Formats: sequence, C-alpha cells, structure tokens
Amino acid sequence: MIDKIKVGIIGYGNLGKGAVEGIKATEDMELVGVFSRRDPKNLVVEDESIKKFHVDEAKDFVGKIDVMLLCGGSATDLPEQTPEFARLFNTVDSYDTHAKIPEFYQAANEAAKASEHIAIISVGWDPGLFSINRVIGEAILSKSETYTFWGKGLSQGHSDAVRRVNGVKDGVQYTIPSDEAIEKVRSGSNPELSTSDKHNRVCYIVPEDSADKNKIENEIKTMPNYFVDYNTEVHFITEEELKRDHSKAPHGGFVITGGETGENNKQIYEFSLNLDSNPEFTSSVMVAYARAAYRLNKEGQSGAKTLFDIAPSYISPKTNEELRRDYL
Amino acid sequence: MIDKIKVGIIGYGNLGKGAVEGIKATEDMELVGVFSRRDPKNLVVEDESIKKFHVDEAKDFVGKIDVMLLCGGSATDLPEQTPEFARLFNTVDSYDTHAKIPEFYQAANEAAKASEHIAIISVGWDPGLFSINRVIGEAILSKSETYTFWGKGLSQGHSDAVRRVNGVKDGVQYTIPSDEAIEKVRSGSNPELSTSDKHNRVCYIVPEDSADKNKIENEIKTMPNYFVDYNTEVHFITEEELKRDHSKAPHGGFVITGGETGENNKQIYEFSLNLDSNPEFTSSVMVAYARAAYRLNKEGQSGAKTLFDIAPSYISPKTNEELRRDYL
Repeated sequence: MIDKIKVGIIGYGNLGKGAVEGIKATEDMELVGVFSRRDPKNLVVEDESIKKFHVDEAKDFVGKIDVMLLCGGSATDLPEQTPEFARLFNTVDSYDTHAKIPEFYQAANEAAKASEHIAIISVGWDPGLFSINRVIGEAILSKSETYTFWGKGLSQGHSDAVRRVNGVKDGVQYTIPSDEAIEKVRSGSNPELSTSDKHNRVCYIVPEDSADKNKIENEIKTMPNYFVDYNTEVHFITEEELKRDHSKAPHGGFVITGGETGENNKQIYEFSLNLDSNPEFTSSVMVAYARAAYRLNKEGQSGAKTLFDIAPSYISPKTNEELRRDYL
Repeated sequence: MIDKIKVGIIGYGNLGKGAVEGIKATEDMELVGVFSRRDPKNLVVEDESIKKFHVDEAKDFVGKIDVMLLCGGSATDLPEQTPEFARLFNTVDSYDTHAKIPEFYQAANEAAKASEHIAIISVGWDPGLFSINRVIGEAILSKSETYTFWGKGLSQGHSDAVRRVNGVKDGVQYTIPSDEAIEKVRSGSNPELSTSDKHNRVCYIVPEDSADKNKIENEIKTMPNYFVDYNTEVHFITEEELKRDHSKAPHGGFVITGGETGENNKQIYEFSLNLDSNPEFTSSVMVAYARAAYRLNKEGQSGAKTLFDIAPSYISPKTNEELRRDYL
C-alpha cells in the first residue's frame, strides 16, 4: 500500500464521531485531526490519540490534508462550509436539503473549480445510495415506477413534535414502512401510493405523572401535517424503557423499481438498508467517497460531483485488477 | 433530444430478442438492425420493421452504428466476437464466465484501445449489478461479510442434468435461496454458509409413462455435484403443467453485506432482483450501458470497461441537471 489518504473532519457531532470510526476501520486512510467550533481543550474525544483543533486552524492544514469531511448540518453549516473549505481542500459533505441541491451544487462547483479541488456533495444514503439506485433502476427499466420507503427509523422532526404535546415528558417516533404497501410494490402492480399510504407512525411516549393518556393519544393522532393522514400508534412506556429500548438511532428503507419488459414480464429491482446507526452509516459512506475525491483530484479533475458522477471502483480500496478478478 | 444513439445487435437468441424490446422501450436509441449467422431470409423476427443482416455484413456498418450489442454466448461466441467487433464498434457484451474474466478483459482492452473504441464487458446482473453492489457494500462497510444468493431461478445446467435421468421425459430445476440462510444474514450475525447452505433445489419432472418415480427421485437427489449436497425436492407433474407453469425463465437473487460500525452497530446493505424474464432483464442492462459506451467514447475514452468503471449518470437518459434536481 502506498501513502495513506490524509483525512480531516470538520464538526464533531454524531456524524463526525461516526467518521472517526469509519476512518479507523479502513487500512488506506489516516485521520489528521478533528476541527470544531468549540475550544479544543473542552472537546471530549473517545480516543485520546485523536488530534483536536479549532476550526479556524483548518486553513493551516492546506497540503497536509487530502480530503476534508464536512460533518456539519444542512440547515446552516454546510451552505457556508462547503464553498469555504472547497477552496482549500477536496471535500465530502452530506448536504440533504433536497429542494436546494441545485443551488448548493452550483456554489460548491464554483469554489471547487476555482481552486482545482473536488467537492463531493450530498453523500450518504438518501440523498446518496438511494439516489443512485433510483437512477440505475429507471435507466435499466424504461417502463417502470420507482418507490422510496423510509424506515424503520427514528424521525427527529416527528419526535420533537410529540415531545411538544401537553403532558408528554419524553418520547420518540418511528416511521415504519407499510408491509402492505411494500408487498403491493414487490408484486409489480405499480400502485399509486401517497407518502401516508407507504408509511405508518409509531410513538413511544413517557407521560407526565398526572397526564391524561387518552388526551395525549388523541392530540398526537390528530396533529396536522405530522400525524393526521397516517396510520399512527401511540404506546405509553416508562422513562427506563425509553432509555433502555429507544436510545439508538436506527434507520433504513427501501427503493423499489417495478418495471415491465417484453410481453408483460414483471422485473423488480430493490435496494434496502437496515441500519442500527444512521449517523455511523452515513459517515461510512462519506469515508468511502473520500477515496473518490482524492483519486479524482489526483487525475486532474475538479469541481462539484455527486454520487451520480462517480464510478464504483473509485470508492473501493481494492485495485481494478482485484475488483475484476474477485468481485465481477 | 439530439440525434438518437444508433444500436446494432449481433445474435438473435433470447438475449438478442430482449435487446430489441429494450431498445424499443427507450426514447434515445434506435435499432439499426439485427445481425445473425443464420441466413437473414430464414430469420423470423417478431416485428417486420426490424432489418435483418448476415453477421458478415456488420463491417459495412462502421460509421452507421454507434454501439453494437453482442448477444452471443460466453462459451464460444464472445471470446471471438468481442475482440473482433471492438475493432469496429463500441461494444457491450454479457460475458459471464467468472474465472476467465481477466483474460477476456485483456483481449477486449487491446482490441478497443487499438481502434479507439469502448468495449463494456460482463454487463448484466451477475456479473453486473450484483458485482457493483458487492463492491459498494464492502467499500462502505470496512468490517463486513458479503453474501450472494441466487434464485428463485430456473437453472439451465441443472435442468439439463435432470432431463438426462433415466425415465425422465422432461423437467426443470429451480434454484431457491434458503429463507433460513437469508434471515441469518439479514440479522447481521455474519454466519459461515456454503453454497448448499444458502440454496435449495426444486425439480418439476414429467416422467415417462412406465417410469419408476421413486427411482427417478432417488437418482436426482443423490446426483454428485448437482444435487447430493443440497436440500432437494422432486415433484412430478404432467406435460401440460410443465408447459403452462414452467415455460418462463424467471431468476433473481440477493446480495447482502452485513457490516458493523462503531460499538457493535449492525448495518445491513441489501440488493435484490426478482425477474420474470432473466434474458430480457440482462439485455435491458446491456441497453442502458450502451448509453455509457456511446458517451464515454464521445468524450475521447477508449479501452475495455466494466460496470465498476462507469458512473451511474452515464447510463441514464436524463441530463445531469435533471438527475440532481429530481433524483438526488
């Protein structure tokens, strides 16, 4: 193995922590350090060997870091950070505000082109692996419908919503794909399904001691936008049960393309993920695409890229000869 | 839409017929003609508008065909045809003799480099889509095991084997993934599984009138290599039932990567296909990758490529802007 790919991480939340683990699990990358807005002295890292820096020090690492993983949030961090750091490094981010991706791409592309870096944007599983499967499934099956199901997954937005209900001490909400809807899609019947047809919602609620459970349940089930259109279940549990059974961040889902070829032959293309840890998986995808950012840049390419633009061999630690011999 | 991509087909068996349907279903390709070793006068095509030529006439179509789909078999056709036609055209083939892929690649690469064409080899689902999922799953999940299950599928080799048994008039064999094995893999326990642990075999046999069914069943179940190590079921049916229920060529399967990240978090990555028609799906994959052959060559690239080398956007009829806006 030649020199390892030198990787830095900006942001040390769940995604940044997952990226540290992801880099450690590889044999071809090394972690140069973690950069945070917090004072490095106060940043608690799991592993003492991890070097901690203030984000303002990142610019001093030009030439010492091959790829910077941007592990901030899509709402406010990444719209600033991606253009800023794409001027200094190759970058990988997980920008996931679907509606604003075209403008985000343009800003990243301008910054990366100007400085001759690669900025791979919107890396993860949705946007990410789900997106490439939507594209591949439909490219192959010209006559088809594609369905995306999310879950079983903890939804942050919906969990926040149930916690705001009067009498709720704590709680979580899972989005669960409807088995019935999945079976319809897998049968190749290409049904019309709304988001609420495709998903059920299950809430685990810790009530305040004096709370009226019926009132809580009713208020959740009739909440506009969040629950009213869905098949919703509400379960009441204790604080201990919440901590014991609901402290992980599982997620996953399915992308299914139901197509037809020739004379009425059904062809079902399906991709799915079942994840114990959503942030750890997302950051593992980012780590794999850091290889692509490094290699594409070495080839002399620059600009913003998405997963659509990147061939599978670029993300594998194996050589092309190994891939053809052992994986084809 | 600019000019359509002009596609030719060499070989008019099940794969070639599927390719005709696949091209018809697109909006950005046109079929120039079908080339066969048979006398074109005797070649029966479903649709009279399809132009038929002898394969020796193919060389007259240089400059008139952008991509030639090579729809012959892997045993004898493709080892000759891919190098021969890669000298004249961009090509796509479905070469599937796994063990000989490295040497096949080399021959295709030399021919395609010399003539500045693109030859995309081993296109289909396995080798093909299953291969890229094995690579992507393991690239993302550094600590993982990958499992490939085939079926439910009609196996040509095993069907031939049961038909050679004394007293068997006709019959088919399906390879069926073991539900128990799939569930173990999906649980993330990364079990050790042999090919026979992963698959069951089910035979539908039409016996000769006078045949001893017990003897047939016993001979099949104890057949070395083919059945003895497997959980095998033998069902006896009539000729009418065989024709009615077993005349399609369904296939499919699963690629599952079971990985672990962080502290014992299981992450399951799964890709699956459920196909009514194996040859029609394989040829649909070839048609999609014809776009990639055309576009890569337009960019000035040449040589042999596999699916590992090709970014998803190259096989989609959509523009990169459309993909980012609608599919990411």
